[in-house]
Amino acid sequence: MLNKNQIKFIKSLQLKKYRKESGFFVVEGYKSILEVINSDFQIEQIYVTREMYQKFKKELDKNKVEIISKSDLEKISNFQSSDSGLAIVKQKENKILEIKEDKIVLALDDINDPGNLGTIIRLADWYGIKKIICSKETAEFYNNKVINASMGSFTRIEIYYTDLVEFFAKQKIPLLGAFMQGENVHTFKFPKSGILLMGNEAGGINKNLEKFITEKISIPSFSKTESLNVAMATGIILDNWKRSLN
Amino acid sequence: MLNKNQIKFIKSLQLKKYRKESGFFVVEGYKSILEVINSDFQIEQIYVTREMYQKFKKELDKNKVEIISKSDLEKISNFQSSDSGLAIVKQKENKILEIKEDKIVLALDDINDPGNLGTIIRLADWYGIKKIICSKETAEFYNNKVINASMGSFTRIEIYYTDLVEFFAKQKIPLLGAFMQGENVHTFKFPKSGILLMGNEAGGINKNLEKFITEKISIPSFSKTESLNVAMATGIILDNWKRSLN
Repeated sequence: MLNKNQIKFIKSLQLKKYRKESGFFVVEGYKSILEVINSDFQIEQIYVTREMYQKFKKELDKNKVEIISKSDLEKISNFQSSDSGLAIVKQKENKILEIKEDKIVLALDDINDPGNLGTIIRLADWYGIKKIICSKETAEFYNNKVINASMGSFTRIEIYYTDLVEFFAKQKIPLLGAFMQGENVHTFKFPKSGILLMGNEAGGINKNLEKFITEKISIPSFSKTESLNVAMATGIILDNWKRSLN
Repeated sequence: MLNKNQIKFIKSLQLKKYRKESGFFVVEGYKSILEVINSDFQIEQIYVTREMYQKFKKELDKNKVEIISKSDLEKISNFQSSDSGLAIVKQKENKILEIKEDKIVLALDDINDPGNLGTIIRLADWYGIKKIICSKETAEFYNNKVINASMGSFTRIEIYYTDLVEFFAKQKIPLLGAFMQGENVHTFKFPKSGILLMGNEAGGINKNLEKFITEKISIPSFSKTESLNVAMATGIILDNWKRSLN
């Protein structure tokens, strides 16, 4: 059974302030917990229901596991209903990422919505992108909405928060920026590698980054609709880029 | 000022039961309200703040408009914060849609999540798709989450809920089904027109529909990720289809 202090501590991790202070974050649901077990993240503690423990004993026993009741799990869960478990995981350091010249890398300029960031992480993973560079105003990677929306893909992506102006100033590979007006991605000749920069949900790419952009690209519309969701646009552009390399 | 009965009635439209009984639904936010004014939907009543009224007097005055206070608006709104307005709109009949042979049409098999349906409507609109056929278990078009996620695109899409088995039995154009295993959309030769069938978020396309499918297609993955969100997959397939027609 969980005591009051444990419950208080785990629930405090729903807030950025306490995630920052403690250096931990929360992973929920059996699929994501199994993915984090198989990743290079360090697990501090796993809480699971007896049912989940019996199903995944082999995987779980490699870790510090405590069996708790469903009602205890509900007390600590972010989910509306939860019947599997919750893991407390150590955050990774915000380490500078080396950009290799033969890879596609994603850069995010102030993507504020955690659900969008999580979806983009899942997408990046689908298209084999390993590294994401984020502006400092982009949603926090360890926010539980990001982790949940990424559907386990957060374990396979490296992320680095930095000042994008300083970062881009040092890069020498093509920087493609997604705009409402730009080269049509259906006909654009994508480079073999480079960085794809996606802008904020409402305001797009910040003006002070435009000078670093080597190509402006856009997704053609076949109607008078104003915009696509930024995660959707990221998916469609990555799909166009990857198919162009075949 | 709104009286208690008005507030009760408008709030009741948050529930499917009362939407069905009354035949009305709710549209919120100034962009969506302006779109619905410019559409062929019949508006029953618009409630706006004085600020929104002054900004969009010309458009609003063609309709039955009442100016209400921000606190009244908050009482009737589905939004966490709302400062523009809310419209009560008449639902359209669930009329059978004629499928023309030269068009791309979307069919949805039990898309349960209203956010997904709304996003798919927005996407369909972007790619110039005008008609969506839905299984009866698909989320309700007039759910406020669907309307909100569609970002006004619901005004430009015709939708028809029906038994897909009966519907497909009568069609003679190609029916493309999205599967985990199928022809790679990057190399698949898309027909000039046809129906794209997308399956349920968890279970995919129902077994009893498979016999109608003329081509199984899939989006190539570049990692070991299990799946893409269904709205994302719809966007990427439509993008591949539309670019193949140029």
